[in-house]
Amino acid sequence: MIKTDILIIGAGPSGLFAVFEAGLLKLKCHLIDALPQPGGQCSEIYPKKPIYDIPGFPEVLAGDLVTNLMEQIKPFEPGFTLGERAQTIDKQEDGSFIVTTNKGTKHHAPVVVIAGGLGSFEPRKPPIANITDFEDKGVAYIIREPEDYRDKKVVIAGGGDSALDWAIYLADVASEVSLVHRRNDFRGALDSVEKVEELSKIGKINLITNAEVTDLKGEEGLESVVITHKDSAREKEIKETDYFIPLFGLSPKLGPIADWGLQIEKNAIKVDNAYDYQTNIPGVYAIGDVNTYPGKLKLILCGFHEAAIMCQSAYQRIFPDKKYVMKYTTVSGVSGFDGSKKEAKKEVVKSIN
Amino acid sequence: MIKTDILIIGAGPSGLFAVFEAGLLKLKCHLIDALPQPGGQCSEIYPKKPIYDIPGFPEVLAGDLVTNLMEQIKPFEPGFTLGERAQTIDKQEDGSFIVTTNKGTKHHAPVVVIAGGLGSFEPRKPPIANITDFEDKGVAYIIREPEDYRDKKVVIAGGGDSALDWAIYLADVASEVSLVHRRNDFRGALDSVEKVEELSKIGKINLITNAEVTDLKGEEGLESVVITHKDSAREKEIKETDYFIPLFGLSPKLGPIADWGLQIEKNAIKVDNAYDYQTNIPGVYAIGDVNTYPGKLKLILCGFHEAAIMCQSAYQRIFPDKKYVMKYTTVSGVSGFDGSKKEAKKEVVKSIN
Ligand SMILES: Cc1cc2nc3c(=O)[nH]c(=O)nc-3n(C[C@H](O)[C@H](O)[C@H](O)COP(=O)(O)OP(=O)(O)OC[C@H]3O[C@@H](n4cnc5c(N)ncnc54)[C@H](O)[C@@H]3O)c2cc1C
Ligand SMILES: Cc1cc2nc3c(=O)[nH]c(=O)nc-3n(C[C@H](O)[C@H](O)[C@H](O)COP(=O)(O)OP(=O)(O)OC[C@H]3O[C@@H](n4cnc5c(N)ncnc54)[C@H](O)[C@@H]3O)c2cc1C
Repeated sequence: MIKTDILIIGAGPSGLFAVFEAGLLKLKCHLIDALPQPGGQCSEIYPKKPIYDIPGFPEVLAGDLVTNLMEQIKPFEPGFTLGERAQTIDKQEDGSFIVTTNKGTKHHAPVVVIAGGLGSFEPRKPPIANITDFEDKGVAYIIREPEDYRDKKVVIAGGGDSALDWAIYLADVASEVSLVHRRNDFRGALDSVEKVEELSKIGKINLITNAEVTDLKGEEGLESVVITHKDSAREKEIKETDYFIPLFGLSPKLGPIADWGLQIEKNAIKVDNAYDYQTNIPGVYAIGDVNTYPGKLKLILCGFHEAAIMCQSAYQRIFPDKKYVMKYTTVSGVSGFDGSKKEAKKEVVKSIN
Repeated sequence: MIKTDILIIGAGPSGLFAVFEAGLLKLKCHLIDALPQPGGQCSEIYPKKPIYDIPGFPEVLAGDLVTNLMEQIKPFEPGFTLGERAQTIDKQEDGSFIVTTNKGTKHHAPVVVIAGGLGSFEPRKPPIANITDFEDKGVAYIIREPEDYRDKKVVIAGGGDSALDWAIYLADVASEVSLVHRRNDFRGALDSVEKVEELSKIGKINLITNAEVTDLKGEEGLESVVITHKDSAREKEIKETDYFIPLFGLSPKLGPIADWGLQIEKNAIKVDNAYDYQTNIPGVYAIGDVNTYPGKLKLILCGFHEAAIMCQSAYQRIFPDKKYVMKYTTVSGVSGFDGSKKEAKKEVVKSIN
């Protein structure tokens, strides 16, 4: 059982910044995310694209914003359960909660903050009848650890950035990389498309366009991948394949959270924006894209504000008898749980004679 | 008469960021500030100190944050009325407002946003009976344009950073700089205190400690400054003085805004935080440190959020018949009023044959 002060579901920008605001109040956080890396939409959908409306940044790449947030929260040593989806919530007699993931990991905390964005990112699966039989037995929808593919025979499917980028990356790692795409138009960064073209010419990527993976074969696990060409309807089998990785993007689903007894409106969780972004379940808050209230804007900067306000209320819930007096970070500095201390240079009082 | 879409009173971080959010909605802004420079508390009180809780900045100097915000809003060409205090507001028949400053400058806009922080910064004046007679005739409480002091004889009073820094700066500009302080302990950055000590030793600053300016003399304007030593009570006159600049800090006063018929609570303006940060006067909003609502935190990041939400409501007020559909800056880019356009590199669709 993982124990913490504030359990945060979703490690997007809102969840990450909540760690910082909680840390200032000396509260520890643990984050659960279905994705293998923190950063939510910023990391998963557009890490290399610029954002222009983060206050104080005339321009910042989404991925860099996440890197900065990770550095900012580092002193507060957040825990992470990554690659797992928060599935159930159980209220305990003392008012605290146990949240269990799809892999059975249990988390216990007096306060739960849902910072789940548009929902937990779930891979879009290709329509291959028996694909679920091979999940975790050769079929993967997300690449968590590229080294798992070293010297393996890999078939990637897809025609977007993710398929292009991983095909390029694995061309140097795997023993063989095939890239299957149902058209011959690729949609992605120009560099990536050109790089794939080049690697295909020198035989480092086996490029199969106008074709789809239509069947998977194997006894215990995946053994071969059947590809059907669209024009000819001719079938071809790539034998002795270790991995089939369809990269058709991820689509967010509110998913199990929708069944937690929360008030849901427009696929989002209703919160009390006039006070503390708490949901209808006391002790459960919702911040960032996942919540809704009159006038809600799904912007990163709004999630930051909601995180700060929420933490004050969470503090009162955890310590009903204490009164927290807000201090400016400039004046009081930032004391990390790791023993670090950041602070402004002190003024001196010095006499001149 | 200055005309604009949104008139913002206060050019602190909240007011500045409002220019950006308004610009995304194609609304023009004009800002009034009592201080000679934008940035509010950040520029006036602690420009060289680090802030640790601006999301995405593990550390940023307050002055740099303001510089960044100024760069971010530049494409939206905000107008500025600096060094003037918004004094009166008059509602017009068509629901718009005319705001007049203490110097008589008039501004006309359909929406007024008060982003006045702790209030308009007013200089703390030393208790010299006839000091007001010499204001703008040799007495200045804020240095707007250092070049005004070139080759002049200047007396500065004060023992903090502002007095130290300006004495150092003007030592190279003015023909003579005296620094008068009632103690011999100075409170400021160590470098500055040491620098003043050094300049005093080589005769570039005439340092007079344990003394106070007690009288000012002159017919049309300032002619001489009388200094009384604390121990001896001996008086000394610095003749042919062009300027006397007491730098005892600025203290914020809600001031005239308190008489505008707004609901005031705890020296701040009550707003509807459950919707759009509007005050009890429709069309007048209040954002940042100047407003109050249940759970309010006087933090810079909160002012940013309030600015974004407020702009949506202001847009509806200005264009009741249009429906604004929010777009991500990453997706739509930022089109400045100056013709500039920032946008993410477009994805390509390219075929590989
Ligand atoms: C292309 C694009 C461009 C954008 N441009 C801008 C822009 O310019 N400016 C701007 O402000 N915003 C922009 N946005 C929106 C911005 O990315 C979101 O507002 C922001 O990511 C929301 O942050 P969040 O932390 O609330 O949620 P998210 O970033 O969505 O993160 C939520 C996380 O929660 C996880 N999660 C959800 N449910 C569960 C569960 N049950 N178990 C485990 N994990 C779960 C998800 O996997 C996800 O990682 C853009 C979005 C896109 C897609
Ligand atoms: C030493 C110190 C350290 C701080 N540290 C932090 C920190 O670490 N983190 C954080 O988030 N915040 C911090 N703050 C607070 C932060 O600076 C404020 O929250 C922020 O400046 C508020 O921004 P604002 O735009 O609302 O108002 P302000 O910055 O106060 O700006 C308001 C402006 O309005 C002008 N004004 C007011 N009335 C009028 C009028 N009638 N006419 C013309 N002009 C007018 C004023 O002159 C002023 O320039 C700190 C403050 C101080 C003093």
